[in-house]
Amino acid sequence: MSEEQQDQQIIYIGRKGTMSYCLVVVTIFNKGADECILKARGRSISKAVDVAEISTRKFLAEQIKIYDTKIGSEEIETDTGVKTVSTIDITLRRS
Amino acid sequence: MSEEQQDQQIIYIGRKGTMSYCLVVVTIFNKGADECILKARGRSISKAVDVAEISTRKFLAEQIKIYDTKIGSEEIETDTGVKTVSTIDITLRRS
Repeated sequence: MSEEQQDQQIIYIGRKGTMSYCLVVVTIFNKGADECILKARGRSISKAVDVAEISTRKFLAEQIKIYDTKIGSEEIETDTGVKTVSTIDITLRRS
Repeated sequence: MSEEQQDQQIIYIGRKGTMSYCLVVVTIFNKGADECILKARGRSISKAVDVAEISTRKFLAEQIKIYDTKIGSEEIETDTGVKTVSTIDITLRRS
């Protein structure tokens, strides 16, 4: 594993509470990571934005910043066929 | 009003259905605009991403693209005090 890969962590935003994910972000950066990516699909997208905003403005204010935000689509297979869902990738980086 | 301002339209994403907003996007670009911004707060953020993805991939595929995505926070006054909500601004531009 290259050094770059070790420093980059991915957090999948799902059904847990917003604060649980903020705690994961704080832990990752406190362990020395330089970058972490929040990934969410569908209705969890709003929660991912909340996690990014709360982490960068409250818990790790002036330590990390929102480096990039990308939106896209993904096809997922369900019982009733293939469904397209929107996705978001928010990159947080040590500032 | 300068020419630049005339060409830029803002759509506030709220409680209507996703397709209603897609129709507004299609109408704006069909009337000749070069750019339009989707703005949403809180839980409507996921809907704004859906509107952007559906407009750029289905209705106006290869005609418009997602030019920029910005996330942020806003303070709003409620009956119970000031509350911070997350926001998203998605810029769609003629490609």
